Amino acid sequence: MSNRYLAELISVGTEILRGEIIDTNAGYLASELPLLGIELQGMSTAADDREQLCQLLRHALERSDLVIAGGGLGPTEDDLTRDCIASVLNEEMTVDPEIEEQLRARFSRMGREMPAHNTKQALLIPSARSLPNPRGTAPGWWVEKGNKTIVALPGPPRELKPMWKNEVIPRLKLRFPGEEILSRTIKTFVIAEASVSELVQPFFESGNPTMGIYSHPDGIHIRMVARGDNARQLLDTTEAQLEEILAPHIWGKDNDTLEGIICNWLNQRGLTLATMEDGTGGLLANIVTAVSSSGCYRGGLVACSHQTKTGWGVPAQLIEQHGSISSEVAEAMAIAARERFSADFGLGTTPVAGVDNPEGRQPGLAFIGVADAKGTRTWQQNYPPTWEGVRNRAAISALFRLRERMIELKLTTS
Amino acid sequence: MSNRYLAELISVGTEILRGEIIDTNAGYLASELPLLGIELQGMSTAADDREQLCQLLRHALERSDLVIAGGGLGPTEDDLTRDCIASVLNEEMTVDPEIEEQLRARFSRMGREMPAHNTKQALLIPSARSLPNPRGTAPGWWVEKGNKTIVALPGPPRELKPMWKNEVIPRLKLRFPGEEILSRTIKTFVIAEASVSELVQPFFESGNPTMGIYSHPDGIHIRMVARGDNARQLLDTTEAQLEEILAPHIWGKDNDTLEGIICNWLNQRGLTLATMEDGTGGLLANIVTAVSSSGCYRGGLVACSHQTKTGWGVPAQLIEQHGSISSEVAEAMAIAARERFSADFGLGTTPVAGVDNPEGRQPGLAFIGVADAKGTRTWQQNYPPTWEGVRNRAAISALFRLRERMIELKLTTS
Repeated sequence: MSNRYLAELISVGTEILRGEIIDTNAGYLASELPLLGIELQGMSTAADDREQLCQLLRHALERSDLVIAGGGLGPTEDDLTRDCIASVLNEEMTVDPEIEEQLRARFSRMGREMPAHNTKQALLIPSARSLPNPRGTAPGWWVEKGNKTIVALPGPPRELKPMWKNEVIPRLKLRFPGEEILSRTIKTFVIAEASVSELVQPFFESGNPTMGIYSHPDGIHIRMVARGDNARQLLDTTEAQLEEILAPHIWGKDNDTLEGIICNWLNQRGLTLATMEDGTGGLLANIVTAVSSSGCYRGGLVACSHQTKTGWGVPAQLIEQHGSISSEVAEAMAIAARERFSADFGLGTTPVAGVDNPEGRQPGLAFIGVADAKGTRTWQQNYPPTWEGVRNRAAISALFRLRERMIELKLTTS
Repeated sequence: MSNRYLAELISVGTEILRGEIIDTNAGYLASELPLLGIELQGMSTAADDREQLCQLLRHALERSDLVIAGGGLGPTEDDLTRDCIASVLNEEMTVDPEIEEQLRARFSRMGREMPAHNTKQALLIPSARSLPNPRGTAPGWWVEKGNKTIVALPGPPRELKPMWKNEVIPRLKLRFPGEEILSRTIKTFVIAEASVSELVQPFFESGNPTMGIYSHPDGIHIRMVARGDNARQLLDTTEAQLEEILAPHIWGKDNDTLEGIICNWLNQRGLTLATMEDGTGGLLANIVTAVSSSGCYRGGLVACSHQTKTGWGVPAQLIEQHGSISSEVAEAMAIAARERFSADFGLGTTPVAGVDNPEGRQPGLAFIGVADAKGTRTWQQNYPPTWEGVRNRAAISALFRLRERMIELKLTTS
């Protein structure tokens, strides 16, 4: 017997169709459903229009076990999600006194009287249960009727996401008790999305686990989703196969971050890090200082001019001789960072050559330097000169190179 | 006679429904259509499924003048957009020799032979014209039949966006010669989205101009779209009304950036800027160095520890006396940045108090300092402690404060 569960998403709001707000809920929910073993077969956006929304709901209910609506739960006349669900299910809405009281209490905590039209948000139909919304005035609806389920969620993502996580997921797990679903993400750097896809495709032909390939600022992530009693084993096997072909490019799993891994390695040995940036313009410092474990970070200098570089310890004759976009300058920046901040590791990034850089270097060229007690390493990077995220790419490259050097020095912890 | 033009968007791809990629095209196109006077009345996402896609296309063509499909133009069997348009319009597809030759030439430039299945991308129907795609192998389709128009665009945003701008917009302007449509964006900082919305609502009750309110890292943007012969005058009038109520919060228009404005002001007077950051951790440097006019930027220090701060000129006794989260330290950081980098302006950001900061300050508290030849200014900031983008907010605040100080010193240029 098949236990495929089919779902459909409806985003509600004229402002989405007018391009006045961007709908981020649909993509979020689409990435969540596979983890519950639920298959999304359609997504659509409706204006705040009774006829259109009712028609979409009716059609979705015909095809799917689960219909999720996001938005249209506000207090105004334009907020039609509740009305349309009631109308499609042919049920009557009545004010639930308990929810009304909670709404009133919420307004009174803010020192305000509840506007009359907010009573609308306390409406229920016999098939609906209310889903609490600690972050807003719009409770959600959980509706079960026959073998169909409808979930109505508030539109603002900061209200929708916690309601989804805390209220909806537990109920969906009971209502759609599919096979066990497990996911694992492998994070890689350096290789392009297309080639990752080609390399790993053969391992996913069985359809279990399924694979998603996501391009992120910190590289290409491969998400595996496995189902069934041996889901964990399937993930382990596939992960081992992926490691065999992608090993040098894999830097982490699941919630790992490159900066988090590096800071943990440094902290565990009481080592410290400092940076001197040109091409990355402070982004490297910004990434490292965003980690809770960034106690290992001594500080950083953003030095985009010759004057600032030489003022902080890069020998002027090196720049004159080799140009600022050179491995010599990357090395000198790393050494200067290490010395000026009394750190164990220094990391330097040279300018990235622009299309008409005065030094006449190939556009997209940049260098990364790492300095430590044992010596220095430099790497040449060639970015596509039109790459929009070249700074981001350069900053992540620098961290990736530092990671490589720490592995070389056997400073990792497992 | 009405000249309302109605449109519908269809995003094509099972990977969108599986949450494996996020559809950013739909939001982009939705925000573009109002500028052409075209009204989007529906958006949907189809799997790579012939029946579903044909049904969506057929339904969209019944209701709308214009149907835009994104995705499904690749060379594989799963790429069904061309097939479904042909089938819905009841036309036959044939290989266009000229397009086939262009594709072959493209592959040969990459030093490869064209795979047989790519021939599919050279297919046309009698009603379709090919739209060139300089960034990929999938040409688009421009289809006119009776009074209906279908546009098929490739899925990758880096291919879709230039094709939209260069090929589709000019054709749409000819095909749907609506009234003149003009837009203008007013950029504000400090006030919250809800209150902007409440304040400006009365000016948009006529429906012309219409208004979009967008929350961005650099504040709340208000986009006005006006139509008709007096569109420009409508925008001018509404802008003047908005200025009356929002004046102190407005910092720019249209393509302005806060950092761009500041760098231009500085450059035009030959003035320079330096930063010393704690709470913003390099983000301020990163924002400023991203501007092409950042020649005015001398450099920046990321100084998250006491040691680094005092090593670079912040008096240790100030930190002992007032704590690092204090206006005194913000001021000293600004002064030290100005002196150490020999700049005309120094900008300092203290740490942002965390939930259990050792100094026991109120969570979310931070200070910003500006130092210049005439003296110093400091500002206290209170961010919601749970604010996810607190660093971003702090960096933009610092730039906004620098702007205020430059206005005070009459260093702006108009």
